[in-house]
Amino acid sequence: MSQEKPLILVTNDDGITAPGIRALIDVMKQLGDVIVVAPDSPQSGMGHAITISDTLFCDPVTVKENYKHKEYSCSGTPADCVKIATQEILHRKPDLCVSGINHGSNSSINVIYSGTMSAAVEAGIEGIPAIGFSLLDYSLTADFEPSKKFVKRITKQVLKHGLPQGVVLNVNLPKLKESEIKGIKVCRQANARWEEEFDKRTNPQGRDYYWLSGRFVNEDEGEDSDEHALSQGYVSVVPVQFDLTAHRFLKDLNSWDLND
Amino acid sequence: MSQEKPLILVTNDDGITAPGIRALIDVMKQLGDVIVVAPDSPQSGMGHAITISDTLFCDPVTVKENYKHKEYSCSGTPADCVKIATQEILHRKPDLCVSGINHGSNSSINVIYSGTMSAAVEAGIEGIPAIGFSLLDYSLTADFEPSKKFVKRITKQVLKHGLPQGVVLNVNLPKLKESEIKGIKVCRQANARWEEEFDKRTNPQGRDYYWLSGRFVNEDEGEDSDEHALSQGYVSVVPVQFDLTAHRFLKDLNSWDLND
Repeated sequence: MSQEKPLILVTNDDGITAPGIRALIDVMKQLGDVIVVAPDSPQSGMGHAITISDTLFCDPVTVKENYKHKEYSCSGTPADCVKIATQEILHRKPDLCVSGINHGSNSSINVIYSGTMSAAVEAGIEGIPAIGFSLLDYSLTADFEPSKKFVKRITKQVLKHGLPQGVVLNVNLPKLKESEIKGIKVCRQANARWEEEFDKRTNPQGRDYYWLSGRFVNEDEGEDSDEHALSQGYVSVVPVQFDLTAHRFLKDLNSWDLND
Repeated sequence: MSQEKPLILVTNDDGITAPGIRALIDVMKQLGDVIVVAPDSPQSGMGHAITISDTLFCDPVTVKENYKHKEYSCSGTPADCVKIATQEILHRKPDLCVSGINHGSNSSINVIYSGTMSAAVEAGIEGIPAIGFSLLDYSLTADFEPSKKFVKRITKQVLKHGLPQGVVLNVNLPKLKESEIKGIKVCRQANARWEEEFDKRTNPQGRDYYWLSGRFVNEDEGEDSDEHALSQGYVSVVPVQFDLTAHRFLKDLNSWDLND
């Protein structure tokens, strides 16, 4: 029987001990055989970074004594975790890779900076169906219970339908009680950005330094965007691709005098 | 007169002392007023990482005594450099941001891992026309002279036409003599990937560790791809977008039973 269960690779960017990945593991154990390869420390904001100028450690760990599945703690980024899992740890290609549940939003432009989504994209590049899950609550004590039903439902659909080559899913969950969540909506990425504010300080040696902070600005009024769905109490599902070509602009660009 | 010149922000991911950024500065000085804000150390493979859990330093530096423009060395990632430049260093929005010239290819799937392109994308998010330039030569002693003519030509066209909101350019230059380069081609991102190989070793304390390496696999036979153009001796120009929504898959995804 066990052979017929899907093999599910679980990772994240908040680190292997974060509550979010524990919630995700709980759900995935209901759906398949789980293996965890996750960063040994928080990697938020790492984008699609990979480790090419440093060594990588990847060691078996026991996070909870009563777990039967295997877990590995990796010194690299989320994308490194997926690479090392598929090449060095797993003996066959996993049927699914899930990343998260992230402590904080990866909706709209946040997908670009997201370590959570970089793991899903890395899996997608390797031809593995993949989903990144994020809860709109940055707190380390965030309540992941209300998310579980929706995480399970979306994962079951992906296991059933598969995903087309070149597409992974970016799922964001509102910070609401389960009864308050209205359902799941398929969306496009909202047109939004961060307005940076740098907090400038001076260190004890008299040298100026900065902390990056900022204000999220949603410039999108469309009702089909992920930001809109989340603001209305829905779980947002955005299909994400990694062909970044702006195909709509190819014709115009070809009309430029590039070779004169 | 100086007031009418375009203000050009120059950055990269190989670090402020890399030969590639010096070549880019040489070209940009012919086209506008230059300001440099670049990482203080190599940031290759950083993807779109940003620094949110650490402090940032950003100090004026003098790399060459005879330079009249200002240069700043930043402890952060390429995306951090663009953020801090536009928020803390420049007194007005630059007319253009250029990143590179990278020591090594950022064609096809490499765009996802590229620090060079993350700087260009970050500028694009802020509404600044932006171009990332990369030479297909990883060597620190790479010859950037043959690239200069093409870098200048493409930059002049971007200054003339502008770029649509949400689009930046990814330019890759073949490792050829100037006379061997056939021209400039507008392309789409090739469908390619890295087949990872981890070089497993044991440290003096007996603990296993890995070096990430890999083999580039081009799975794209299309003649309109950047890989094809480069293989034929052309400079490739791919328009890159940061709306990652896989619009082609929205309809199918909407047919799933996500709310049952």
